[in-house]
Amino acid sequence: MSVAPGVGDASAPIGVFDSGIGGLTVAREIMRQLPRERIIYVGDTARVPYGPKSPDTVRRYSREITAYLLEQGVKAVVVACNTATAHALPVLRAEAPVPVLGVVGPGARAAVAASPHRRIGVIGTVGTINSRAYEHAILALAAGAEVIARPCPLFVPLVEEGWLTHDATRLVATEYLAPIQQAHVDTLVLGCTHYPLLKPLLGELLGADVRLIDSAEETAAELGRALEQRGIAAPDGRGAQHRFLASDAPEQMLRLSQRFLGAAIERVETLDLG
Amino acid sequence: MSVAPGVGDASAPIGVFDSGIGGLTVAREIMRQLPRERIIYVGDTARVPYGPKSPDTVRRYSREITAYLLEQGVKAVVVACNTATAHALPVLRAEAPVPVLGVVGPGARAAVAASPHRRIGVIGTVGTINSRAYEHAILALAAGAEVIARPCPLFVPLVEEGWLTHDATRLVATEYLAPIQQAHVDTLVLGCTHYPLLKPLLGELLGADVRLIDSAEETAAELGRALEQRGIAAPDGRGAQHRFLASDAPEQMLRLSQRFLGAAIERVETLDLG
Repeated sequence: MSVAPGVGDASAPIGVFDSGIGGLTVAREIMRQLPRERIIYVGDTARVPYGPKSPDTVRRYSREITAYLLEQGVKAVVVACNTATAHALPVLRAEAPVPVLGVVGPGARAAVAASPHRRIGVIGTVGTINSRAYEHAILALAAGAEVIARPCPLFVPLVEEGWLTHDATRLVATEYLAPIQQAHVDTLVLGCTHYPLLKPLLGELLGADVRLIDSAEETAAELGRALEQRGIAAPDGRGAQHRFLASDAPEQMLRLSQRFLGAAIERVETLDLG
Repeated sequence: MSVAPGVGDASAPIGVFDSGIGGLTVAREIMRQLPRERIIYVGDTARVPYGPKSPDTVRRYSREITAYLLEQGVKAVVVACNTATAHALPVLRAEAPVPVLGVVGPGARAAVAASPHRRIGVIGTVGTINSRAYEHAILALAAGAEVIARPCPLFVPLVEEGWLTHDATRLVATEYLAPIQQAHVDTLVLGCTHYPLLKPLLGELLGADVRLIDSAEETAAELGRALEQRGIAAPDGRGAQHRFLASDAPEQMLRLSQRFLGAAIERVETLDLG
């Protein structure tokens, strides 16, 4: 990771990556909070999903994408994937010469701030849950907190099928959430960037007393602070031109961008990975 | 693909590959019908699933695995993955110096032989269905056949979750199968190596009048004939020692081998791909 022309350059873009399209929910929040920033988004759609893959493999993929983003001259990297954050954030931070932000820390902070009784549920992919990254991050902030974590491997394919309120999704969610409900959590972390699209259904099943935490908002806020602190926030008066790249099936990212990004993308470039 | 020490060697192993563990249902049938043959099985668990990926990417992965198997000295290659067969069989056959068999041709032949009224349904991944490989293969055998094809993207994650008869799986299957049932098919091709595990549920939903076709049996029979014709069937008296390789998470293949292979595997080696 030696080539990094974007280091310290306020006018350089922000690199954002995910295993696929879920990270567009984070890109969306960055665009909303930091409208002057340009984004280069990489979705590793050729190797999606990262959730069931081993930590070593997820680290290898994450380092490869980060190296690519640094070559493109980014001034900061946002790991907009919970599994990649859980497995790769320390190594990316150690190696990259620019700030690297993940979604787990911001999500844990938002959960602790929102939870009145410190009874916090976490749902995510098998990789994220097995890593216990959220549990560690929450306990570091609130030592006495009760954390109940549950993998929900069918949520990503259900969201990608577009079945956001389908009866099958309702049945799956009811089963996955049962241990979370039995533990009487007051806050639930949506520990996967696909899950915010299930918010209406999850909110209905859990009731209004359970706060649903989506890391995207807090991650974008933390990115804003990091850029300000380093004096590399984008200067005024520049029209933000974003780039979107996919390692496979760019037409799928185009098609699903409305759902995840809240806006249509005009063009998705193809990037060879793996 | 120049190194191929197994060409024409009857005592060489058979290479079998799939995007993941589904192809173990094909390996199982080869072991049953051809108990003298040794198998080297490669599951590309790092890059699973192939179903939603583009044809170019699936071809690239399939060529890489076939090259590896040829280096290992296989005398034949079985593409035990419908998506890889649909996209890559022609290029693998053109390049490999050993017989290469897919699962689509055998499945199509079995379906045409079983179907009394030539009204044939096909279910598979998005990649397999979009390729229209089964439709073309069936129509080449029975020009007037009616073929109704439907992608079922949630079946693979449901099978991998082990929810073979869960109410959610029943709801998903009911929705996916509706157009198949409305078309009054008499035969349904299970065009993905994961689907045979859903046979009990699918049989219950479709009723006894619809024949369910699993390509594995016919593929193993065709492999047996191909080896005999070329005089490279394994000689008598050799204890078949199989090898299993996974490009990621070998412990998952170990854990799921009982369900897919009908027998436990003692050891899974790791193979670096991508």
